[in-house]
Amino acid sequence: MQIPNFRNVFTFIILSSLGFQTVFASSGAHDIIPQTFLWIVIALLAARMGGFVEKFGQPAVLGELLAGAILGNLVLLQMPWFEGMKSNEYLHFMAELGVVILLFQVGLESNVNEMKKVGLRALLVASIGVILPFIMGRYIAGPLLMPGLSENAYLFLGATLSATSVGITARVFKDFSILSSKESRIVLGAAVIDDVMGLVLLAIVSAIVQTGSISVFSVLQTITLSILLLAGGTILGGMIAKPLSKWMSSLNPGSGMKLAFALIVGFLFAYIAHLIGLAPIVGAFTAGLMLDSIHFVHFDEPHYIAEFKDAVTSSDPETQERVISISEKQNEKHIEHILEPIGQFLSPIFFIMTGLAVDFSVFMNPSTVLTAFVLSIIAIIGKLASGMIAGKGVNKWIIGWGMVPRGEVGLIFASVGRALGVVDAAEFSVIVVVIMLTTFITPPVLGYLLKKNPIS
Amino acid sequence: MQIPNFRNVFTFIILSSLGFQTVFASSGAHDIIPQTFLWIVIALLAARMGGFVEKFGQPAVLGELLAGAILGNLVLLQMPWFEGMKSNEYLHFMAELGVVILLFQVGLESNVNEMKKVGLRALLVASIGVILPFIMGRYIAGPLLMPGLSENAYLFLGATLSATSVGITARVFKDFSILSSKESRIVLGAAVIDDVMGLVLLAIVSAIVQTGSISVFSVLQTITLSILLLAGGTILGGMIAKPLSKWMSSLNPGSGMKLAFALIVGFLFAYIAHLIGLAPIVGAFTAGLMLDSIHFVHFDEPHYIAEFKDAVTSSDPETQERVISISEKQNEKHIEHILEPIGQFLSPIFFIMTGLAVDFSVFMNPSTVLTAFVLSIIAIIGKLASGMIAGKGVNKWIIGWGMVPRGEVGLIFASVGRALGVVDAAEFSVIVVVIMLTTFITPPVLGYLLKKNPIS
Repeated sequence: MQIPNFRNVFTFIILSSLGFQTVFASSGAHDIIPQTFLWIVIALLAARMGGFVEKFGQPAVLGELLAGAILGNLVLLQMPWFEGMKSNEYLHFMAELGVVILLFQVGLESNVNEMKKVGLRALLVASIGVILPFIMGRYIAGPLLMPGLSENAYLFLGATLSATSVGITARVFKDFSILSSKESRIVLGAAVIDDVMGLVLLAIVSAIVQTGSISVFSVLQTITLSILLLAGGTILGGMIAKPLSKWMSSLNPGSGMKLAFALIVGFLFAYIAHLIGLAPIVGAFTAGLMLDSIHFVHFDEPHYIAEFKDAVTSSDPETQERVISISEKQNEKHIEHILEPIGQFLSPIFFIMTGLAVDFSVFMNPSTVLTAFVLSIIAIIGKLASGMIAGKGVNKWIIGWGMVPRGEVGLIFASVGRALGVVDAAEFSVIVVVIMLTTFITPPVLGYLLKKNPIS
Repeated sequence: MQIPNFRNVFTFIILSSLGFQTVFASSGAHDIIPQTFLWIVIALLAARMGGFVEKFGQPAVLGELLAGAILGNLVLLQMPWFEGMKSNEYLHFMAELGVVILLFQVGLESNVNEMKKVGLRALLVASIGVILPFIMGRYIAGPLLMPGLSENAYLFLGATLSATSVGITARVFKDFSILSSKESRIVLGAAVIDDVMGLVLLAIVSAIVQTGSISVFSVLQTITLSILLLAGGTILGGMIAKPLSKWMSSLNPGSGMKLAFALIVGFLFAYIAHLIGLAPIVGAFTAGLMLDSIHFVHFDEPHYIAEFKDAVTSSDPETQERVISISEKQNEKHIEHILEPIGQFLSPIFFIMTGLAVDFSVFMNPSTVLTAFVLSIIAIIGKLASGMIAGKGVNKWIIGWGMVPRGEVGLIFASVGRALGVVDAAEFSVIVVVIMLTTFITPPVLGYLLKKNPIS
């Protein structure tokens, strides 16, 4: 009993040919969903074709970004075939679902105790990675490279340069199966802390622009609330997850219920994070981190193991043990395995859409490109410096480069500045190019570094 | 580099508290995506709670419909908490994705040669199931139960009663794992034919209403085009699928590419069906039917089987054979297995949204309910009669009841009639109640019939 979405085109043709033309005049809106099916086909095909970069040791995500960028810029060659994808709200929604699922998967594959071990290092990396680019942008690079702008404009430039977008790096680490490495944990931890810092910074900067001063009370309130709600949510969530999983498995154990439980917790945390003011992906990551194998034990289907046990009843004990260990290993990994197809369906759409948003025509303005290029080097140096203080026993370059992409987080800052009337069109263009450069350069550099010095 | 969707609520609070209120005034739209995350949580939770009906031998889909109907009508008890779900376009989109994936899965689990064997029976069932309810609605039940309406109004009533919505029945058959039964194949085949017939009927009825007569040429054109494009698409698709799968697996074999290939073919067919004027789910079903294990052979990961082979090298041949047969069976089913989590994520949302659309308040009008009740009995009898001529060796009741739900297909007919000014508000209400009754009664009746006379 859904509102009808189909049949319109052809019925329209039929009715038109019968001299009837008004009924379906407004049916265009109903065609968006089936049209989106075609865009899904193109996005998945492009993402998979982009996978050729893996043959050069590059992470698959780079191929997806490139494929999206090519689709999005064919319009410059008079081939505007894929312009409809850019404005398709359902694709944007799928992209959001995709990155939430991705960070949830990353959280599930990370271990909360292992994360805690690197907590202090992550805090250090995040702090330097926010403070240094901010200062460089605000006081040095801004006034030098873009003279004549207001103090507030430099303020927003600094804030934008301090951002970190964890989606790209998380995906690179996932592509290379090194999510459990120390480097990966430090970067992921720092990115979460960075998001809280970014929220605080945005509030401060906006306050300065608005009132000329900051209310210490408000800032402290923001910080306290963020930390309280994130930590409280995690603790409370952990307390709720156990009885919830027990209750849901009592309704009906099995993989369907297990998946539903995981999705419910993941999306609930994404929503809570949004309520706090944090990015939904930070919530999804936290949910994945919080959920432990203990939460899924009720759902395990014994028939799977039983089947294999049965198969080897009559054989020698050694074989029996090996077969069982294989099947148990499969079972143990279950929830990550179950989520994998959903991630494989939706995550590429996020990176294709990210690529689509890249507009090569901004590179036509030499002064924009030059300014952005120098600014990007500064933006990269700021984050690489944060990697240098990541402590011993880790590849500092990988950590530093892992923090480099500004992605959508940087864009949020720039957009707020734009909305406040502080960031003008020229500065906005420069910032967009910086975001593009830092986002696109990270996957190949990380790919190169990881190929040269494999970590695990 | 996505357009920002997050951070708005809290940032708004902060900025508001700082005396700044205009920047985020238009941010409401950006909050819809994170808000949707909460609706997803509620939909999945409700769907799973509805699963309690399985304890009474009922198909899970009934529980999902009921859960949706309860959520949707809490507003009548002054609890309008879930009203936002009804108008959430992203949920409607997920529902559409869900039912497309469901019918694609059903197609994959069906065998095209087995379908062909029941082709003639399906054609018979579809024909009687369209003609009988149409005649009864147009010439008997309409004039008797709702006297004083125009001839055209009865025409649309007849057309609505002739519809079949295959989603509900397909899901019931899937819940009971009887998709390969003869009964299931006849119903699925008849539903596809029914969709083509419905398209033709809608064109004819609309033409009569518009011009007072029908153009035989146009009708023949519609029929020919539908059949040609559906059959041609299938044959052409089958021809493309083989090299496409070979090419895609050469890019990178493995489960990710296998899934991408399946989704690409499935959504492409859903889109083509829509272009023809058919329901996307008919295209998705056809795609699933067309795809055979042969198309996936290139993607199979030999390491899985190798691992098990290795595990039993030293054991006796009999055990070895059994273990390998189990692992190969697992491997063979692979694509259905890979799609399962995507279906488990999205399909319940379709049925929850279907339930949500039910408005109990229409039952407050006794004359509407009485008319609709009698009309529903006639609607059911019409489809049961079509089951009676399904031939020997099948449970005719199951086939007949399988054709009963009118679902969204009936609603499309009624909506077109409404848009043409032929169906008035009272008649529309009656039709909506008939659609509700025929949709909701089918799962429990099929559950009862299948419990009494299990088929396989």
